[in-house]
Amino acid sequence: MSGAKERDERRRLRGRGPSRDASRACDYHRLRNPFEPAAVFSEDRVAAIHESALRVLEELGIKVLLPEARMIYARGGAIVDDDSQIVRIGRDVIGAALKSAPRSIDLHSGAPLRDLTLTIGRLTFQSGAGSPYVTDLIRGRRAATLRDYRELTKLTQHFDVLHMLNPLVEPQDIPMHLRHYHVTEAQLTLSDKFPFVFSRGTPQVRDCFRMIQDFRGLSTAEFEAAAHCYTIINTNSPRQLDIPMAQGLIDFARAGQLSIVTPFCLMGAMAPITIAGALTLSHAEALAAIALTQLSRAGAPVCYGAFASNVDMKSGAPAFGTPEQVKANLGAGQLARLLGLPWRCAAGSAANMNDAQAANETQMSAWGAVLAGATVIIHGAGWLEGGLTVSYEKFITDLEVLQTFAELCTPVPAEESDIALDALREVPPGGHFFGAAHTMERYKTAFYQPLVADWSNFGTWTENGSKSANERATGIWQSIVNEGATISNSVERVDALSEYIQKRTREGGAPPES
Amino acid sequence: MSGAKERDERRRLRGRGPSRDASRACDYHRLRNPFEPAAVFSEDRVAAIHESALRVLEELGIKVLLPEARMIYARGGAIVDDDSQIVRIGRDVIGAALKSAPRSIDLHSGAPLRDLTLTIGRLTFQSGAGSPYVTDLIRGRRAATLRDYRELTKLTQHFDVLHMLNPLVEPQDIPMHLRHYHVTEAQLTLSDKFPFVFSRGTPQVRDCFRMIQDFRGLSTAEFEAAAHCYTIINTNSPRQLDIPMAQGLIDFARAGQLSIVTPFCLMGAMAPITIAGALTLSHAEALAAIALTQLSRAGAPVCYGAFASNVDMKSGAPAFGTPEQVKANLGAGQLARLLGLPWRCAAGSAANMNDAQAANETQMSAWGAVLAGATVIIHGAGWLEGGLTVSYEKFITDLEVLQTFAELCTPVPAEESDIALDALREVPPGGHFFGAAHTMERYKTAFYQPLVADWSNFGTWTENGSKSANERATGIWQSIVNEGATISNSVERVDALSEYIQKRTREGGAPPES
Repeated sequence: MSGAKERDERRRLRGRGPSRDASRACDYHRLRNPFEPAAVFSEDRVAAIHESALRVLEELGIKVLLPEARMIYARGGAIVDDDSQIVRIGRDVIGAALKSAPRSIDLHSGAPLRDLTLTIGRLTFQSGAGSPYVTDLIRGRRAATLRDYRELTKLTQHFDVLHMLNPLVEPQDIPMHLRHYHVTEAQLTLSDKFPFVFSRGTPQVRDCFRMIQDFRGLSTAEFEAAAHCYTIINTNSPRQLDIPMAQGLIDFARAGQLSIVTPFCLMGAMAPITIAGALTLSHAEALAAIALTQLSRAGAPVCYGAFASNVDMKSGAPAFGTPEQVKANLGAGQLARLLGLPWRCAAGSAANMNDAQAANETQMSAWGAVLAGATVIIHGAGWLEGGLTVSYEKFITDLEVLQTFAELCTPVPAEESDIALDALREVPPGGHFFGAAHTMERYKTAFYQPLVADWSNFGTWTENGSKSANERATGIWQSIVNEGATISNSVERVDALSEYIQKRTREGGAPPES
Repeated sequence: MSGAKERDERRRLRGRGPSRDASRACDYHRLRNPFEPAAVFSEDRVAAIHESALRVLEELGIKVLLPEARMIYARGGAIVDDDSQIVRIGRDVIGAALKSAPRSIDLHSGAPLRDLTLTIGRLTFQSGAGSPYVTDLIRGRRAATLRDYRELTKLTQHFDVLHMLNPLVEPQDIPMHLRHYHVTEAQLTLSDKFPFVFSRGTPQVRDCFRMIQDFRGLSTAEFEAAAHCYTIINTNSPRQLDIPMAQGLIDFARAGQLSIVTPFCLMGAMAPITIAGALTLSHAEALAAIALTQLSRAGAPVCYGAFASNVDMKSGAPAFGTPEQVKANLGAGQLARLLGLPWRCAAGSAANMNDAQAANETQMSAWGAVLAGATVIIHGAGWLEGGLTVSYEKFITDLEVLQTFAELCTPVPAEESDIALDALREVPPGGHFFGAAHTMERYKTAFYQPLVADWSNFGTWTENGSKSANERATGIWQSIVNEGATISNSVERVDALSEYIQKRTREGGAPPES
């Protein structure tokens, strides 16, 4: 892509805010976290948690339901009891895995502009993901469909600050044995961002690898030489790795594709009630999963991950955006830095509608993840009800926060011309800078242009219909969803993809494994 | 107050969340900022901005409208031109002021529990302040009255995380020459927190000092020996100090009371459009005001302050919670640390209702202030429309964020019992920790109990009326506003205060000066 074309492309892709003012070019693609990571534990306590996690794996072990995975662990030197399915993993095995796991992972997308590098210090955002339901102000709360999945994929494509595709919502109108075809097709044809594949057994994963490889025009060797897609691995906390997850770790590692390992540990429920205890468990499980990837193929791309929050101890309901989640995020970051691996962390909200609670919870937990130095932050936009629902409106209002984070990644110039003594000399006491030369030179590009925020005064806002941020967000997502194709695909490849799906559908698809 | 009584008092005062669970005692009173301050400028750029601010004061000067203030500056060594009213202040004068200004300021309230210390590293919060309008879901948006002021004072008193009283709203039903009597009476009789006094000329300030001194039962020497109240000084940016503000700085300094100096610099409007330029101006004005306090009485308590955000360059409308405000907050913190003075920073929102925009803007700017290491954070709860309105509901929903910040100030224990190897041993793979001994010992106190967040699932939430955070907030503020007296006052002092107000009212009150 030529320089000028690339710049135009960036502008077009950028999202409504900055694109309203074509002369303001802020790059949201390759963000470096501007904040020094914050800590909640002293260094010796980080070491103590790591040591305790190693003891969990050595002394208590982890239950691994997939026989092939137990075999790989055993070959790697772990002690396996096939009756109890418990695998005890020594610190030598973990140490070797941490040595071969890459510190920096290049992700190859459908366009060079969309390629990413995951390494500590970089910052990438994802929207909310994995929800069975979806809601918006026009159509209400409902079971998600392929149409919703496709619309949300378009929205994800539209905003530069969303760096990767992700499972978004479950299209419940498509049966499980065919679902992976349609979500992969949507990702590849509606977006050129880095795609996601669910680990629901080898047959589905093999189908998805094939579709991505062919659509990208890659040989098998080229496909396997670098990460072209990723999966997310949740352990079944406490201390259990189920069949599709273990199979996913193996399949992705062998094909050189990325696994993001994220134990989901709710303190007081599937994890100890203490932050230190929950992180000990989460860390142990992550280490076990990372080891399986490296035993399957040394050097395979894998991300550390942690998603720990608390529950309401009265009802057992999960909570997000709590002080405990922020603290757990910060502690997890310390463990990730001890390992030196790129890692994933999460925002979230348990609110039932996109109100002040929803906004505050998502932003609070996102700050926890940003200050923790997370490389990938998931559930950054749209997540409601602890992940049961993605809200189109919340998707938009949360993006304002993510775009603000992206703006915070840009430096603040303070050269003589920025300090502006001349402008200060020009404007008299009690005057204003609206017409100053210093202002006129910069006013078009000085400030972030909001996506959904309305800064008009109360009178103007009332005349314009007293619209809430939610109502304004509806207009924004509608205009994006209704716009035509935003990426240009090869007709041949789109047709070939479609033919592959028809053929595999006729063959009976690929039921998920468990 | 005895230990047990004090503990009960703390519980009662704490706000609805923690007080629902009497066994959880988290102290929101004396917070230490848990975050290392973040930086946007290199050290040499901080020095360059400071040097440029000194040049502004030396070369351009500041217009000072009050003759007495000009005289004080002149006596202190500044170069004064009475025709233009321009005061040029040399770096020797500023240097001496920065030497005599205290690094740590003890604030004396109506109860020892409410006393505060302002110094870098401490963290105190204030609600939104200074609004002519007020709004709530029951009574709508309206001009604020004394009733609103009194209700909001009760709310401020109720929540431990609000550390100081502040101007809240303007009771427009009370004429200006009598207003200070009624707001001071409300502060003293409805709260034992540190009170605020507007600088609207010496007669009003003298009245307020008298009321506070007498109500606290202090001799003049006792009153003047420590800070018993404070004022906020806004310069008229750019480079102008008006009559009541200059008079306030002098009167408060002479009486040993606290001035918080906060230039309000909107980039592109009354300040340069660049962050570095706006901070140069703001810093220069703050230094000039600090100098006036120290020239009036060396060692007088004074806080540095900065409140810089940007405007929408299309409409001129002020904006808050923007990336530019966050960056300006962080830069101001670097300047404050260069001086070593306690300092004030601000959150804010330009939204017209308490929606996702409102929540996101206030939280975003509050994070900017927290990460900037601000000692006092104002407008942390309730501020809408860039300060034209205080919302009762937003007051409550923002408090959830402030309480979360307070929780983040508490350490995260990670001793052996927190790491919980025994609990991890007890619970089998795939099991849960709800009934574990480790959980049972801690479940009552482990987690922050939310103020307004509803974590119930969608079904339960729907059965309970699908209430938004706003609607729930209405119930919370109503129950607090409608509860009886929450502090016990001396009947004699309340009567004496009332008599003083009646007497001064008969004498014609004290019109504001300008």
